[in-house]
Amino acid sequence: MKQLIPARKGAAHRMSKGQVLRVINTHGSQVVDFWAFNAADLGECMSMEHSRASIGKIIPKVGDTLITNKRRAILTVIEDTSPGIHDTLIASCDVYRYQQLGAKGHHDNCTDNLGNALQALGLKRVVHPCPFNLFMNIPVKNGLGVSFKEPVTKPGDSISFRAEMDAVVAFSACPQDMLPINGKDCVIHDAHYIIS
Amino acid sequence: MKQLIPARKGAAHRMSKGQVLRVINTHGSQVVDFWAFNAADLGECMSMEHSRASIGKIIPKVGDTLITNKRRAILTVIEDTSPGIHDTLIASCDVYRYQQLGAKGHHDNCTDNLGNALQALGLKRVVHPCPFNLFMNIPVKNGLGVSFKEPVTKPGDSISFRAEMDAVVAFSACPQDMLPINGKDCVIHDAHYIIS
Repeated sequence: MKQLIPARKGAAHRMSKGQVLRVINTHGSQVVDFWAFNAADLGECMSMEHSRASIGKIIPKVGDTLITNKRRAILTVIEDTSPGIHDTLIASCDVYRYQQLGAKGHHDNCTDNLGNALQALGLKRVVHPCPFNLFMNIPVKNGLGVSFKEPVTKPGDSISFRAEMDAVVAFSACPQDMLPINGKDCVIHDAHYIIS
Repeated sequence: MKQLIPARKGAAHRMSKGQVLRVINTHGSQVVDFWAFNAADLGECMSMEHSRASIGKIIPKVGDTLITNKRRAILTVIEDTSPGIHDTLIASCDVYRYQQLGAKGHHDNCTDNLGNALQALGLKRVVHPCPFNLFMNIPVKNGLGVSFKEPVTKPGDSISFRAEMDAVVAFSACPQDMLPINGKDCVIHDAHYIIS
């Protein structure tokens, strides 16, 4: 069943070892911040800094296995119908980020969305890892510079993972509308996922 | 006064806003894993994923300010007499890493070294952030691939930082002797630091 990641908000779901998760960029320009945790120990998380060392890449590709901060397999990329541009380098947005950008009052943000999504499952966040930013376009130029670019995805593009352990997965439809990271119009959209 | 970071082990020190820290690659081929925390709240840490977003680079250069997970300035790079090759992408080594590499029994590791170094100051680790790996050579090729290379530093090369808040800084003379990340001979050396 197709599940909703509401525009500007988060969602979380339990999945069992062997199940498949497909994350869909329904409208084509939406970045989805993505996290995974060991269902038996939320202190064990999918880790970008451990995974980069393990796969020898800054962007996971089909066949690559993401690992936790205990260097255990948690998710393997089994299909990617997008152009394969995702990001492992950039922190999730937060209240501090929007304050610095000049937002007035409350602004939805991926950091709070993760906490709220876990809470909706009756879980409490133990660590806040760097996300795997699906469909986010952060090119590294000349081995040094990073820049924030619009997604290169089209509506319906998706990336799929096999769970290598019982896991809790969590998503945020990134509410960044003050920079064109979600497309040049800065419009935030729903995204979807399917666990099968 | 020159302070010791013993080969294979860690060290930590308090520093006040405005003080200068110089980290010295005494023998020229030693990687130093480096962390910094808000002295008033060890849950607020220097964050590689937040800093990359802020400085627009994967390697901080002279003039760049590293920020915390609350996006506040913690350290500014004020001098770098090395070739400027450092790493923000790779997790600190840990017991799991050495088990996977086939180490028998205990192997010193940077993750435990951070915990022990803080403990020696009477402090307890709250979070374990991705380190700023000083002098570590992890080139990113074609915007995708990372590889583990020998340092390009020479004996006495150093990098210096100004503290932008009262901080606790911590170091580990990386004990990785199963890969040539600390030089082709895999010999682990002391390093030093000076706070003035």
